[in-house]
Parts: sequence; structure tokens; C-alpha cells
Amino acid sequence: MKILLFGAGRSSLYFIEYLLKQCEKYTWELSIADVHFDNLSLSIRSNPKLTLVELNIEDHRLREQLIHAHDFVVSLLPVQFHFTIASDCLKFSKPFANASYITDELKSLEPEILSKGLLFAGELGLDPGLDHMSAMETIHKLQAKGAKITSFTSFTGGLIAPESDNNPWHYKISWNPRNIVLAGQGMAQFKQNGSIVYIPYHQLFRHTWKLNISPYGKYEGYPNRDSLHYEDLYGLDGIKTLLRGTIRATGFCEAWNILIQSGFTNDNVCINTDQLSMQQISRRFFPFDIKDATPGQMSSHIGFSVSSKAVNSLKWLQLDSEILLQKGMLTPAQILENWLMLKWKLEEGDKDMVIMQHRYEYELGNDRFQMTSTLYDIGSDLHHTAMSKLVGLPLAIYVKNYLLGNIKGTGYQIPVSKMYYLPILSELAEIGIQFKHVVRKQRK
Amino acid sequence: MKILLFGAGRSSLYFIEYLLKQCEKYTWELSIADVHFDNLSLSIRSNPKLTLVELNIEDHRLREQLIHAHDFVVSLLPVQFHFTIASDCLKFSKPFANASYITDELKSLEPEILSKGLLFAGELGLDPGLDHMSAMETIHKLQAKGAKITSFTSFTGGLIAPESDNNPWHYKISWNPRNIVLAGQGMAQFKQNGSIVYIPYHQLFRHTWKLNISPYGKYEGYPNRDSLHYEDLYGLDGIKTLLRGTIRATGFCEAWNILIQSGFTNDNVCINTDQLSMQQISRRFFPFDIKDATPGQMSSHIGFSVSSKAVNSLKWLQLDSEILLQKGMLTPAQILENWLMLKWKLEEGDKDMVIMQHRYEYELGNDRFQMTSTLYDIGSDLHHTAMSKLVGLPLAIYVKNYLLGNIKGTGYQIPVSKMYYLPILSELAEIGIQFKHVVRKQRK
Repeated sequence: MKILLFGAGRSSLYFIEYLLKQCEKYTWELSIADVHFDNLSLSIRSNPKLTLVELNIEDHRLREQLIHAHDFVVSLLPVQFHFTIASDCLKFSKPFANASYITDELKSLEPEILSKGLLFAGELGLDPGLDHMSAMETIHKLQAKGAKITSFTSFTGGLIAPESDNNPWHYKISWNPRNIVLAGQGMAQFKQNGSIVYIPYHQLFRHTWKLNISPYGKYEGYPNRDSLHYEDLYGLDGIKTLLRGTIRATGFCEAWNILIQSGFTNDNVCINTDQLSMQQISRRFFPFDIKDATPGQMSSHIGFSVSSKAVNSLKWLQLDSEILLQKGMLTPAQILENWLMLKWKLEEGDKDMVIMQHRYEYELGNDRFQMTSTLYDIGSDLHHTAMSKLVGLPLAIYVKNYLLGNIKGTGYQIPVSKMYYLPILSELAEIGIQFKHVVRKQRK
Repeated sequence: MKILLFGAGRSSLYFIEYLLKQCEKYTWELSIADVHFDNLSLSIRSNPKLTLVELNIEDHRLREQLIHAHDFVVSLLPVQFHFTIASDCLKFSKPFANASYITDELKSLEPEILSKGLLFAGELGLDPGLDHMSAMETIHKLQAKGAKITSFTSFTGGLIAPESDNNPWHYKISWNPRNIVLAGQGMAQFKQNGSIVYIPYHQLFRHTWKLNISPYGKYEGYPNRDSLHYEDLYGLDGIKTLLRGTIRATGFCEAWNILIQSGFTNDNVCINTDQLSMQQISRRFFPFDIKDATPGQMSSHIGFSVSSKAVNSLKWLQLDSEILLQKGMLTPAQILENWLMLKWKLEEGDKDMVIMQHRYEYELGNDRFQMTSTLYDIGSDLHHTAMSKLVGLPLAIYVKNYLLGNIKGTGYQIPVSKMYYLPILSELAEIGIQFKHVVRKQRK
């Protein structure tokens, strides 16, 4: 069996290490295609089971040649490349898997996937991925006992480990920085106490949930884009409260909201940054010296009350630096992304942290219960991040199980049924990646 | 000469009436293509110079046949159709004109327009249109005198005449309601005292200018999308303040901002409105009874302070009505648009009003001056609106002058040079449409 992976970036490391072990065990082979392989250590690069192929993804001839020559294709590239690769896989009738959301564009391939009897699978990473698997395992168990689930809230965060936390945002970047800057754009939709609630982007970071994630500490969460369609997807028809969100350290959202309110996260307007400093750009959004700004001045600028803690977090970013920007036609969001990649960089010795917590409320017989399921993981080092582990391993275990014939099917699937989540969750549990469940009976 | 007009909607009336007169005078002919002609009176319909063609714009065969059979093509359809029509005009080498902004997509046709030696012209209505013409006439005159223009601000509004003003928004719809609901989405960019300022959509309706449009009254204005590129377009290099905006009655923006903050103007999320009432939709944005809402409740919901006047304007819209919505997959913005078309409808006997005001500051010799140029026009009736007059007549006069050979050129042009604006402005002045200029010397 020959496996082809597109993408040798940060989140690929655990995937690669895991699959190389399987290649030895089952005499498979792994090829990786990307523009460079700087993230891979010498010991990985010298693995005899591994072939590295330098590829510009736009080079359709080499790309198609590669896909044609392999038995299974995985993409860990940024989302905009998945459709091209999935389309090629369809052309050469190769099964495909990735860790990203199945977009409408990808879903449009399903009739042809079905007609060729292929299995494509997506949302096999952390979020989306482990969130589906762990929630569905619990939901199926509860429903099998006859429980009626009345509330499901689920929050996930890629954060910084407490021991590496040394900035007022309590945040460093362990995954795609573009997604961090654009997070929440659109409109959040969820259900709360039986009512549908819409929250637009510019109100989102004010609508935070206080999360007490025992025993790890207090956090906050903001709602993710569309929680409503999980009612059908998870089989939770008629559920009263249904919300998925993102975890951040307490105070992050208030400070981030200042940037949103200023317009700095806009991704539509292009600015010629030639000869412009960060300070000159920032002045267009904040018409005063940020470093001297008082909470009163900031509150009056954005129109609602801001704490001095939030203003201090903003000041720490040094957006009024006189450093010249990278030349180009860049959107404010891109300028901010480049800046945050420096300010929120994981440094040598830093460890990241991932937290996922589901909270269920359900009725069983005449009793009402609340259950929390919490996953907490800390990275080993700058490269072996918890993020890379929890994105890469579920996907890698899926690939192994597919190639061993344990997972069968056709269409474009996500891991919400037992055939998918059981082997993945049980193998993750063997290496200590498991949720801690706490059930409490509630007063009536 | 055979002229073809696409669009028999509200804003076409003056255009049609004017051109029919020219058809008699110059023995030209006018055809109008649209899906229906309900807006046209019997006397217009029976004009022997006029041919009406029922056309679905998607019917490319009939559309092309029509364009092929005419000498000049005008579109007063909604913006999304201009590119199709302009492309057809290019195919059959016919000159084209409209009253809308030249989008990047339309501009992309220019090389081919040039290679065929054709003249396409856009932005020939009110705003864009008369704003360019009137501003450029003044700017050229001032610059010819050696004046240095340091500030240019320009505001335009399609409003309701004082005698027909009977709602707390002081507003009724005299033009494209979709544009009214989506107004300001994106990011406003302008120059103020030498600095570039960016204001995102969700802050825009808080950043209003107080406008004292003597002798008509006090209004307010919010900035339009991109004022920056007028520095080059109008030849105002190095100008300190440059702002274009939209006029509304005082208080409108604060009340409209409540809708923006709630998310109701979102145009991306689709809602299945089957069996849903307006109240049920509104509850998703305002989780309380709007009709009983206090300013305190509203302020706390949207995060900043709202006056009772603004809350009363919102209540007047009766968004908590139990009336069932039109069935369909509609965005919040579309639902709101349909609703506002009823609430802000121009009724029998109503008259609309258009105000445009430019304000220039300039240095001449050792003196500094301020000049305001104000256009004020009130419609005659429900059909003969000031909006239809001021959009349709400049375009119609352009078409006449083009056909008479007074305007020549190639490419995709807008009316910023004398050849365009002089004949149009002088003919408008003959029928009383002219700016009132007031110059004041300023203290140094």
C-alpha cells in the first residue's frame, strides 16, 4: 500500500511519525508532497519507508502523477487546496481523507464519489474530528440507556500550557494563524433554552460563556459559527440547548473584541503596505497613540466599555511599532496575522495545550443529570505539540483502519458512527488520550 | 437611431419621458425591455416612438437579438445585470451607458472596449453621476483660478419631503431597497485632517457627521465605502480631508445601528422562512419583546448606550408582528428588505426629496475660503420622484448628446471631464436643477 500525504507543515508531525511506524509493521510506504520539508527532522527524512516529493501544488501534472501512483491520499494542507486534491482523487479513483470541515464545494463531489464506490472522509482531526467522535460515543451510550438529552454544549481550545504562559493574552499560536485572525466572521447560530439565537461577528466576542474546566481552571468560550445543524447531525432532535464554541483564557475575548471593533480583522480591503510602518497602519484604526491610551479613550473610540486589563493586552501587542511592514497588497487581517505570528510565536521550550469539554444535560427515568467530558493534553515540545498530536493521530488511525479493511463505506463521510469512532477512540485511549467523565445528578 | 433601454422600473420614468421627446424631435426610436411594464402609464405605452419588449434577462437569445437590432444600449436594471448586458454590447459593438458604479468586473471589459473603439459610460445618474459632474465643475473652476483645495466633503441623500414625513425614521424608500438594507457593509475609508481613517461597518453608523444644510434643516451623514480613490479621480492630490457620505434625517443612524448590531442586516445566512412569523425571526436577534423594550434593555443587549428615541423608531417598525413571512430561503437582510418595503413605502400623495451638498475648503492667494454647493429637489408625485428625475435625466441627456455627436471618446468613462459634465449640467440648469453656491471667507 502506498500512502500519499500532501502537507509537511506543523500539524503533520504526529501523523507522519505514526504512519511511518505502520509502514514498517505492514510494509506500506509513505510519500509526502510539499514545497519544503523544514519541519521534518533528519531522522524522519532518512526513514527508508519515506519518500519526499518537492511539489508546488499548482503543478497539476506532477500532482496528478503522484495521486495516480498511490493507493490512498491525505491532505493536511490549508483548506483552500482540498478541493483540487479531492477532485484529482476522484479522477483517479483514490480514497481521500483530511482533517478539515467538509465544505459545500467538497460535498458537491459526493454523487461522483458514490458512483465510483469510493470513500472520502473529512473532519478527522481534533475540531472537527475528536469532537464528533467523543460526543457521538457518549450520545449513543446515553440514548441506548433511554436518556433524553436536553442540552449539549461543547468547547475546544488550542491554548498555551500554564508553564509557558508569559503574555497577557495567555495565548500563543499552535495552528493556522489565518483562522485565528478571522475566527467568528459570519454569524453564530445556536439554540439556548429552546430558542434559536443569532449573534453577528461584531457582537460575538461580547457573548462569552464562563467555563470552569475543573481541575484545570477558569476559561471563557465564544460560540462557533453554526451549531444548529448539529441537531440533525448528532441525532439530537428537539434538544433545548445546543452550542459549540472555542475556548480562550479569561479576558482574551474582551481584548480581541477591541481589534474587531476597530476594523483591524477586516479581510476585504487591500492596502499597499510599501514603506508603511505598523504604527501608520494602526493609526487608521486607532486615531491616537495606543501606548498611551486610557480605557476611557478606548471605550469612547469603540463605543462601549473596555477594561484596563483589555487595553493593556492590546498595548502588549505593540501595534504602534515603527517597524516597516512586509511589502505587498495586504488586507488588515493579513497584516495582523503576520504581526501576531511574531508576537504570539511558540518559542523554544514552549508547550501548547489543548482542552476540549462537552457538557450534557439529560433526563433518565425521573431524574436529571449533568455530565461533563473533558480532554486535556499538553504538548511535549515546540514541534510535538498537543495540537499536532490531536489533529494528526485520529486521522492517522483512520487511515490505518481503512487500509486494514476495518472501515468500509462510500460517499463523503465524517466520523459520527461507531465504525469510525470506536477504533479511533480506543487506540487513542491506549496512549492516554481520553476524556474524563463526571456525572452529577441535578436537583429537579 | 434606435435606443434600447433595459429596465422599466421606478427610476426609469424621467429617462423614458425625456428620451421619447428626443425621439420625436430627432426621429429616433426607443425600445424598452423588461419583465413587466406596470410602472409605465398608458400614455407612455401608447407613444408611437416606443416599443415594449417583454424579456426575461436570462433569455440570452432574445436579449442578444435586441442588442443587435439597436444602436445604443442603456441599462437601468439592478447592478447584477450590467455585466451581462455590457458584455453583449461588446459582442455586437454597441455603445453602452448606465447610472451605476463601474465595478472591477465591468472595468475588466475596457481593453476590449478600447480595441473596438467603443465608448461605454457609467456613473451617469445622481450618486454616482451628478455628484461627479457638479464637483468636477467646481474643482476645475477653483483650480483654474489657482485655488488649492484642502478639504472636500460630499453628502447625498434620497429622503422624504418634509410634507410627506410621517414616521419616526423620517424616511421612505425611493430607490433600490436592497442597497438601503446593505448600505455601509465593508469598510469605510476616508481622509480627515491629513490622516487616513478606516471605519468598519459595525462602527459606521456611530460615526456620523452633523450636517446643517441651510436653509433646509439639520441632517446627519455617514461615510460611504471608499472615499480615498477620489483623490486621484478628482485630481485632488495631497488634499487633507476627503469624504463622501450619505445623508439621513437626524437620529436615523442611531436607530439603524440597533439593527446592524443585532445582526438583522446579515446577508450571508439563509433561513427557511416557511411557517415563521416576523416575530419569530426577530426573537433570534432580539431575545425579548421589542414592543416592551426599554433603552436600558436595548443598550445592554447591543453593548452600548441607545436613546429612547432610537428604541422608539425601532418599535415603530413592528418587527414583533405575528404576520407570517414570505416562504423561501431568505437572508436576514432580505427579510428586513421585504419588511421595510411595506413600512417605508411611498404612499399615494407622498413626495420624495433629494439633497446633495458638497463642501470645499480652499486657499486662494493668502486667503482661505469655504464653499458649499447644495442641490435640493422635491418630487412631483409618487411616480415622478426627485430620485427618478435626478438619476434619469443626467443619463438621458448623456445619451442624447452622444447620439448627436457632442460626446466622443473610447473606453469605459465616467463624467469627470468637461465634455461630459458641461452639456449635462447646463441642460439641467435650464429646467431648474442647479446647485446653490455659498462662499465664505474663513478666519486665518
